[in-house]
Amino acid sequence: MGASVRSAIFVVVSAVPFCLPPFRKPDFTAAPLANAPHACFELAPADGVVPEGFHATSNHPEYFHLPSGWHLPRESRMDCVVVLEANQEGSGPRLEVVEPRRVLKGQRIAVGRSDDGQDGIYVHTRGFSEATANGEKFTFRTRGTRETPFSRSYDDLYALLRYEREHGYIVWVAGPAVAFDKDSRDSFADLIDAGYCHALLAGNAVATHDLEAGHFGTGLGQDVYSQRLVPGGHYHHLDIINRVRLAGGVASGLSALAVNDGIMAALVRHHVPYVLAGSIRDDGPLPDVLANVYAAQDAMRVHARRATTVITLATQLHSIAFGNMLPSYHVGPAGEVRPVYLTIVDITEFSADKLANRGSAQAIPIVTNVQDFMINLRANLAGRRTA
Amino acid sequence: MGASVRSAIFVVVSAVPFCLPPFRKPDFTAAPLANAPHACFELAPADGVVPEGFHATSNHPEYFHLPSGWHLPRESRMDCVVVLEANQEGSGPRLEVVEPRRVLKGQRIAVGRSDDGQDGIYVHTRGFSEATANGEKFTFRTRGTRETPFSRSYDDLYALLRYEREHGYIVWVAGPAVAFDKDSRDSFADLIDAGYCHALLAGNAVATHDLEAGHFGTGLGQDVYSQRLVPGGHYHHLDIINRVRLAGGVASGLSALAVNDGIMAALVRHHVPYVLAGSIRDDGPLPDVLANVYAAQDAMRVHARRATTVITLATQLHSIAFGNMLPSYHVGPAGEVRPVYLTIVDITEFSADKLANRGSAQAIPIVTNVQDFMINLRANLAGRRTA
Amino acid sequence: MGASVRSAIFVVVSAVPFCLPPFRKPDFTAAPLANAPHACFELAPADGVVPEGFHATSNHPEYFHLPSGWHLPRESRMDCVVVLEANQEGSGPRLEVVEPRRVLKGQRIAVGRSDDGQDGIYVHTRGFSEATANGEKFTFRTRGTRETPFSRSYDDLYALLRYEREHGYIVWVAGPAVAFDKDSRDSFADLIDAGYCHALLAGNAVATHDLEAGHFGTGLGQDVYSQRLVPGGHYHHLDIINRVRLAGGVASGLSALAVNDGIMAALVRHHVPYVLAGSIRDDGPLPDVLANVYAAQDAMRVHARRATTVITLATQLHSIAFGNMLPSYHVGPAGEVRPVYLTIVDITEFSADKLANRGSAQAIPIVTNVQDFMINLRANLAGRRTA
Amino acid sequence: MGASVRSAIFVVVSAVPFCLPPFRKPDFTAAPLANAPHACFELAPADGVVPEGFHATSNHPEYFHLPSGWHLPRESRMDCVVVLEANQEGSGPRLEVVEPRRVLKGQRIAVGRSDDGQDGIYVHTRGFSEATANGEKFTFRTRGTRETPFSRSYDDLYALLRYEREHGYIVWVAGPAVAFDKDSRDSFADLIDAGYCHALLAGNAVATHDLEAGHFGTGLGQDVYSQRLVPGGHYHHLDIINRVRLAGGVASGLSALAVNDGIMAALVRHHVPYVLAGSIRDDGPLPDVLANVYAAQDAMRVHARRATTVITLATQLHSIAFGNMLPSYHVGPAGEVRPVYLTIVDITEFSADKLANRGSAQAIPIVTNVQDFMINLRANLAGRRTA
Repeated sequence: MGASVRSAIFVVVSAVPFCLPPFRKPDFTAAPLANAPHACFELAPADGVVPEGFHATSNHPEYFHLPSGWHLPRESRMDCVVVLEANQEGSGPRLEVVEPRRVLKGQRIAVGRSDDGQDGIYVHTRGFSEATANGEKFTFRTRGTRETPFSRSYDDLYALLRYEREHGYIVWVAGPAVAFDKDSRDSFADLIDAGYCHALLAGNAVATHDLEAGHFGTGLGQDVYSQRLVPGGHYHHLDIINRVRLAGGVASGLSALAVNDGIMAALVRHHVPYVLAGSIRDDGPLPDVLANVYAAQDAMRVHARRATTVITLATQLHSIAFGNMLPSYHVGPAGEVRPVYLTIVDITEFSADKLANRGSAQAIPIVTNVQDFMINLRANLAGRRTA
Repeated sequence: MGASVRSAIFVVVSAVPFCLPPFRKPDFTAAPLANAPHACFELAPADGVVPEGFHATSNHPEYFHLPSGWHLPRESRMDCVVVLEANQEGSGPRLEVVEPRRVLKGQRIAVGRSDDGQDGIYVHTRGFSEATANGEKFTFRTRGTRETPFSRSYDDLYALLRYEREHGYIVWVAGPAVAFDKDSRDSFADLIDAGYCHALLAGNAVATHDLEAGHFGTGLGQDVYSQRLVPGGHYHHLDIINRVRLAGGVASGLSALAVNDGIMAALVRHHVPYVLAGSIRDDGPLPDVLANVYAAQDAMRVHARRATTVITLATQLHSIAFGNMLPSYHVGPAGEVRPVYLTIVDITEFSADKLANRGSAQAIPIVTNVQDFMINLRANLAGRRTA
Repeated sequence: MGASVRSAIFVVVSAVPFCLPPFRKPDFTAAPLANAPHACFELAPADGVVPEGFHATSNHPEYFHLPSGWHLPRESRMDCVVVLEANQEGSGPRLEVVEPRRVLKGQRIAVGRSDDGQDGIYVHTRGFSEATANGEKFTFRTRGTRETPFSRSYDDLYALLRYEREHGYIVWVAGPAVAFDKDSRDSFADLIDAGYCHALLAGNAVATHDLEAGHFGTGLGQDVYSQRLVPGGHYHHLDIINRVRLAGGVASGLSALAVNDGIMAALVRHHVPYVLAGSIRDDGPLPDVLANVYAAQDAMRVHARRATTVITLATQLHSIAFGNMLPSYHVGPAGEVRPVYLTIVDITEFSADKLANRGSAQAIPIVTNVQDFMINLRANLAGRRTA
Repeated sequence: MGASVRSAIFVVVSAVPFCLPPFRKPDFTAAPLANAPHACFELAPADGVVPEGFHATSNHPEYFHLPSGWHLPRESRMDCVVVLEANQEGSGPRLEVVEPRRVLKGQRIAVGRSDDGQDGIYVHTRGFSEATANGEKFTFRTRGTRETPFSRSYDDLYALLRYEREHGYIVWVAGPAVAFDKDSRDSFADLIDAGYCHALLAGNAVATHDLEAGHFGTGLGQDVYSQRLVPGGHYHHLDIINRVRLAGGVASGLSALAVNDGIMAALVRHHVPYVLAGSIRDDGPLPDVLANVYAAQDAMRVHARRATTVITLATQLHSIAFGNMLPSYHVGPAGEVRPVYLTIVDITEFSADKLANRGSAQAIPIVTNVQDFMINLRANLAGRRTA
């Protein structure tokens, strides 16, 4: 196919630099926060069980009033509890945002269900809302449909990704559709090569289909370019799994099978970490897949703690799983607070809304086929030929 | 918005030329066609009523056995009847494919419901099926889902459109979504400017939204680039309709309102014909809209008779209406028979399948957001900047 | 099929009677309305053209300040203009809500785009909002998804329909899917027989499929009970259209073809009016179909003026068309104001939301297959066997 | 809510008894099977790795030619390998259908990829195809859309479930939507009470939402009847998980929290087994949830081995997972072969087709909202009041 058709797209772009919106801390010197009591903590009654009345975190910045002042936990996430860690020698108190299943008996857990300070807890939902003209663009859109105009969502995303490549941590969350099409799969690899991916979260299927495409040129037996059903092709995904299992894993399988193109090869080539979380739909699985879903959650959260921009591609399972653990803000090394951006790509409003409605002010749905989305990104970011 | 972001994509393509697949006529010298009787014709009992047992056409080539031999009607369509016209002086018999509502009392209508020649009627479904490698690519795909790989569908379409621009008749059938987004609307205009549109079939909404975008920069009050809801913007579509009604029509309205960009302006600029068919959802309507839907069908069929390639964009109403009147083949001036190609773009499988399943072997569904589809086409065909 | 399976469901219901929520008029004696100026009217510059700055109606009650006081037009609708009719002998001023295309040159048209009284126009969006516990149930739900609990929506609807059968005007707006299934079609007929339908708005397809089912037992050639594709069945819908055209119309066709069951037969039997609006997708059409879509709008609006409860069944075209002309309130003969209820049944959120989001506080989406919806209604309202 | 509305539906049904279609074995005495070679087996090279050229099972009956004759494995499933077990003392050879990941080094694995006997393996796809009139009804339907008539699918299902309650093994596979609505949840419980459920396969969410509904009357904080968002309700699902974790599990939690209604209570009351498979989307999880997805697959397959009828309810993850392990046939204790029936209930064609297209001749899609489906089943099977 490559021989007969040659195209090249050279992209010349002089875009405005992306600017982070400023973060405004709550005013702790004014009422009602000035008069707020200290937050209360009660002991966990058993391992994996939290006290009645526990406070569950949102994905927003939340401040806890301790004797030493108001504290903002780093690396928060939704639907977790706040554990007051014992003071370390020479350091102040430390608040950890912990999944209830990981709580140990006797740990001190924040209790209180108001969010306006009257329980010593303040949920700060408007830290980014009086942003500059440039930052504000991300804040006012709440829902997207197939008829929503997406031109600026794309342009904003291009600018954001150029910024994040240098200054942030870009996490991709992918469903299998991205690997079924030649141009889409190539685009993803090119974006990884160009430095736009700092971690990939996916399942067994994405890796399997990508390796099948690399080894056989098919996805579930269908040619990834011509759509032709290849004779015997229904064995391809079982064969690729078996051969990678024999090789011992994805990295060794790529090498044993001489697969150099595609998503997994690009990740391995650039030492980009990936998490493959198991599911009950899996064939195989590939040796790299995490069988225990809660261990997989823990592995995914490592990247949620670091993420500054997330793009989810046509997966309800993985995108909601990761969305649940993704805070709306990130605290940098010097304590500076910035938003975490989330772009949800799905062909149905139902899936896109499901995540976008979870309250993340920075969530932008793009309702389209993920293949076109990837090709757009490559054409505008990775400067590569399309065919 | 244009000031701060500048991109340019230069496309360099050296694609293989598109080749039409050869058409193979039926073998009328072999059984069973060699022994087939003549087709029968009965008189229409009333205006707009056809005789019992009438033969309804498919969208395939159909041959009727007359005393003078087997005849293939030109400009066929589905679900119509075949009228045997009185011989003209010095000419042979003529068969017309006519909508039953247009039949006149006493006209001679073909009867017979077998399609294998035993009633003197032969439906030729495989004329293009032993096609060359190049042509065959269009024949084996029947359904598409959101997970079908589309790279080759796009590449094939690019090659086809380059061919048709010179040698064919490209008809677009559009729903309103194409006009809601800045880049999508600009892309459509650029493709018209570049010669890729020989007729547009649409409704009141496409023209209204396009003119609203040109005059106010909004679609139903939402900025077509930034998505911002403009204060008072809900009046825009009523205002644009009112002003165009005052001006007397689309062409005079473009001029009166100084709208030079977008879809309708490009059509008018290049004298590309358009049909705006009325529907009960319409506000207004614009003066150019046909209020009588059967008159609109007649106006659309003018283009169905000439069409060699059709692209439908996110409209179930107009695409099925036009699909019903679109044959799978076209007979050229010298009697040569070629396929008619149909690409259906819709974000739901249900809509895409509904048309693709109607039996047109050349129908290719692309399940995606029409905005991305248009941007892809511009980037690969019209050689223009994206932002 | 009927012979081998016999079921009967007897429904015994002692439901609470439905109560209309009270309507609270605006307080015209308090600021700012007490000081509001009179509404302004300007002359229409041409037939079908309204003056710049015209006021477009919403679907809410709107009061216009005239020298004689604040006036609420009866029989309003969305996106229209308000015409001040010349005083009749012995009567006060009269305000008519008119489609802009029907305005005549020189008529006096209300202008002004604020809705808070400062232009003498007050849009009263909260007339029903402080309703009783019973009425309030309809006011707080805004969106429905496939995962929204529908038990109470159904129970409320049953109570509402029992009330409206006696005291209101129930309009159904139907797409073709309702006629494709035996139980669904039978259910609709039973509900009409039981008095739950005062008007039907639909297209050519609903009537055609219903008559095909009555005459041939199929829908587009597929058995409406067993799903079997009947040999030659693809001719059925063309044959039924042709035979009804020969008979001269639906009523005479039912009689000529001895069709006694189904939707159209029930309507004719009970002299329930119906409007069949034409569309460019139509085959035929049946003689009763209105070819001019704006004449069809006028015919539909006759029922919009009277409607107190509307149910739309799996049709985007007809439901949005009718939703556009349906006010949220109805003024009774004695001037009493009551809500108009709207239930939208569709299997996709996109279609359901599209109508529900248009601002009607009384719109309730039920996201399901219309077949199940109809069977539920029959089982709970019409007291008939299910098989 | 129950106080003010009282309805009762008494169902009287005299349906024809359901008849299993006969199974016709292949003719092993005629060519080509009479001359087929013996099947070949090769040794697994490592634990969890199968030999190149391995034979992967379909979901159809497959016969393997051994020296002792043609053998049909019991309890097959798709995409597995066939292991030849060492002869037991006094018994013949035994063939086990095993997931590749469970294969042990050195086990003898069937190889060969033809399915017509030439490799000693015969895939018998038409064993049920010349079925009786009664049985045949399940065999000819392949796809369903929202417009497919479902009356007979329902009637067939009612007859089937009445038969299976006594003679079969009915497995339900449920997504969370079934527990969000009062009537739907009640219906499921009534069907379990009436004996129509022999096993439930689900995830953490179904059990959590069901327990939340039982304890709080809400689903994710929304009243399961009135749709009202309850103040503080967003804590309910976290609270219920925490309390059940404290109680030690679902059974003890039901008792500790005095929850007697709903799905889980009915299962526990009747000692119906359930499998709750973990996923990365889970909060909690409840103590009963299996964290290791491959252990969950093993637990689910216990029921796949026994299942004769399966109903999947609005879950793509669980239904495809179970569909993958569900054979199209079941071998009874006396060696008799019967079909396994599968009904897929989903509101989108995409999800319904995804499973229905996997080749199970007995798969029937019903495209609707699961709430209505459950209410229909209760009204026709469990003979209970609807409100």
